[in-house]
Amino acid sequence: MVETAFTWPKGFYSDGLHAGLKAEKPDLGWLFSKVPASAAGVYTTNQFCAAPTALTKETINHDHQLQGIIVNSAIANSCTGPQGKLDALKEQALMAKKLGVSQNLIGVASTGVIGEMLPMDKIKAGIAKLKQTKSAKVTEAVLTTDTHTKTIAVKFEIAGHQCTMAGFCKGSGMIHPKMATMLGFVTTDAKISGACLQDLLSEEVDTTFNQITVDGDNSTNDMVVTMANGLAMADEESLTPDHPDYPVFAQAYHEVLSALAKEIARDGEGATKLVEANVKGAANDLDAQHVAKAIVGSNLVKAALFGQDANWGRIMGAIGATDADLDVNRVDIKLNGINIVLSSHGVEYDEWLLRQKLAEDQIKIDVNLHHGFGKGQAWGCDLTYKYVQINASYRS
Amino acid sequence: MVETAFTWPKGFYSDGLHAGLKAEKPDLGWLFSKVPASAAGVYTTNQFCAAPTALTKETINHDHQLQGIIVNSAIANSCTGPQGKLDALKEQALMAKKLGVSQNLIGVASTGVIGEMLPMDKIKAGIAKLKQTKSAKVTEAVLTTDTHTKTIAVKFEIAGHQCTMAGFCKGSGMIHPKMATMLGFVTTDAKISGACLQDLLSEEVDTTFNQITVDGDNSTNDMVVTMANGLAMADEESLTPDHPDYPVFAQAYHEVLSALAKEIARDGEGATKLVEANVKGAANDLDAQHVAKAIVGSNLVKAALFGQDANWGRIMGAIGATDADLDVNRVDIKLNGINIVLSSHGVEYDEWLLRQKLAEDQIKIDVNLHHGFGKGQAWGCDLTYKYVQINASYRS
Repeated sequence: MVETAFTWPKGFYSDGLHAGLKAEKPDLGWLFSKVPASAAGVYTTNQFCAAPTALTKETINHDHQLQGIIVNSAIANSCTGPQGKLDALKEQALMAKKLGVSQNLIGVASTGVIGEMLPMDKIKAGIAKLKQTKSAKVTEAVLTTDTHTKTIAVKFEIAGHQCTMAGFCKGSGMIHPKMATMLGFVTTDAKISGACLQDLLSEEVDTTFNQITVDGDNSTNDMVVTMANGLAMADEESLTPDHPDYPVFAQAYHEVLSALAKEIARDGEGATKLVEANVKGAANDLDAQHVAKAIVGSNLVKAALFGQDANWGRIMGAIGATDADLDVNRVDIKLNGINIVLSSHGVEYDEWLLRQKLAEDQIKIDVNLHHGFGKGQAWGCDLTYKYVQINASYRS
Repeated sequence: MVETAFTWPKGFYSDGLHAGLKAEKPDLGWLFSKVPASAAGVYTTNQFCAAPTALTKETINHDHQLQGIIVNSAIANSCTGPQGKLDALKEQALMAKKLGVSQNLIGVASTGVIGEMLPMDKIKAGIAKLKQTKSAKVTEAVLTTDTHTKTIAVKFEIAGHQCTMAGFCKGSGMIHPKMATMLGFVTTDAKISGACLQDLLSEEVDTTFNQITVDGDNSTNDMVVTMANGLAMADEESLTPDHPDYPVFAQAYHEVLSALAKEIARDGEGATKLVEANVKGAANDLDAQHVAKAIVGSNLVKAALFGQDANWGRIMGAIGATDADLDVNRVDIKLNGINIVLSSHGVEYDEWLLRQKLAEDQIKIDVNLHHGFGKGQAWGCDLTYKYVQINASYRS
């Protein structure tokens, strides 16, 4: 598996444009495959699941097939009642008609302010203008407070066929996924059944998208959707877990999902640093994941890291506040490679050197619980003035 | 029950001074009763329970009696290993000796930076200087990032005897109690057994201290301790739940605990506003409390309120992210008395008027879930630049 410049896999097309939902940036885009693709999705667990998210979930669960997806930013079409559902269905119908495919092969995704109605005239005019291109404009059209697009493409070989997998996502605030998160889209020309793809996505999302947090908040519109159209493996059987090259596909998928997840954490609202917590020595992997996410989720840890302050007591506080099985006297902590806690005690360290290390734009917090063989990782970011600024004036 | 100027109940004495743990403010204090008092406590659920908290818990649980408590700020004596335990025991012994009472009648409380050792020479010299006064200096000595002391005193009548209850607390950051919170102390000259007091405290804390949050973080040193010395009810029986005036005592206790809890929320690090969420119509009271606390705990809601932005979608997001039993189409929300959501839909409102209302220093978020008869409240504060500033440089 090698990372490559962003490119759509065989048979995938896309476009993006400014439909007038935002002031000037791209805000509407689509993505589709020239043939129906196996599809899988994971969706927010927020009880106020937005209309487009609910519709896409229903559509994909029907028989795990999808041919295209229409995406807008600026307005989430969430908490919009029966009219919101009709609007999502209308988008689905407009795109299906334009592509000449069945409506139940089209997904719909929206992100932005909750509670506002979609301006359907603008959406309709925008859809009419979308073209079948190989551009990456949709990766821009999906952004809200993100500072840049988040994309990755990898190439890998299955049964001698060169396959491509390309993913993109958006997300910057309201990020604390409990099942999926934000909007994430992964396309591939590898061949795999929808059911296998769903199983793999559901599994992989637990150690990737579900292990990032920006602010502890959980959106109403989150989803990660994958489409696999099989066009790079024309005469081959679909991949299944017992195929010899299945691990190659699974690894590519894991790399794409975790790269996208980390990009979201790095681009957390106002963030200046990507924070990674690596926990080992836990009673089991779940405990380790839970502890890792608690550390990167602590406002106090996040603010201390913004201030380049090695205030490790807050890391201990975050670990101890979990219900993970702990030996409270055996915890070791390193910050960017420097030992600061051994056996739950602070150790002498070079404060000046550590402050330099904490000025870096990536902070690794390595924790050894010395209580078993469980491992887990999580990603977040620092808490800055800019986070407050962005969110004190989001609608203005 | 009437609120009165702060005063210690009969037979309680106190003092506070600068022992040199902080740069110049008071940092050491004590509080004691001239006779042994019935005592009850609730303590942090953080697994890294600090040495003084663990020692006080053990001391009170022994037979629910306490005669005094020694308190310091600046250093938490948490994550300090065996030496930390010895230091807490030493404080207990020094105070017991000075008062001439048994060591197991003395509680110990510390708050401040985690991981640093107490300077026992300064503590020892400080304890030697503490006097038997009626001053409220201890309410200052306990503060960390708090901007002011938090005190309340009430008078009430039990069986014809005038009783007093006086409480104080500290807490501003690392506030998201799961059992008790921060440091809180309540004294009274009413007569009640330690066991009854413990039951009542454990019950009352669930709807008071446990319903506040500042930042989602949970300290290692939290505790709320109450001492009842009975001196205002010399010849009476101890209060029990079947005493006709028990509800008077319970109500006074509830008022004191909730007033102190709200003061902590109002003085949350960097806060400009006290935020109160009132939830009704929940399936049960626990659901209502859970939803209320989720609302005041959301970073996004908190930042929006700082910006005086009626971004109600974030309130919906916070409600939906809980596992409370909901009818997702029937939620109503008011902000400072103005309807903004009816049946889970945004309603037209006067944006200018609402912005004025949101400029007030108290924000009430009233939520009706229309799904039962459960009620609950929670208190928090807005999220401001100053929170980040305080916590980016806490140790500096």
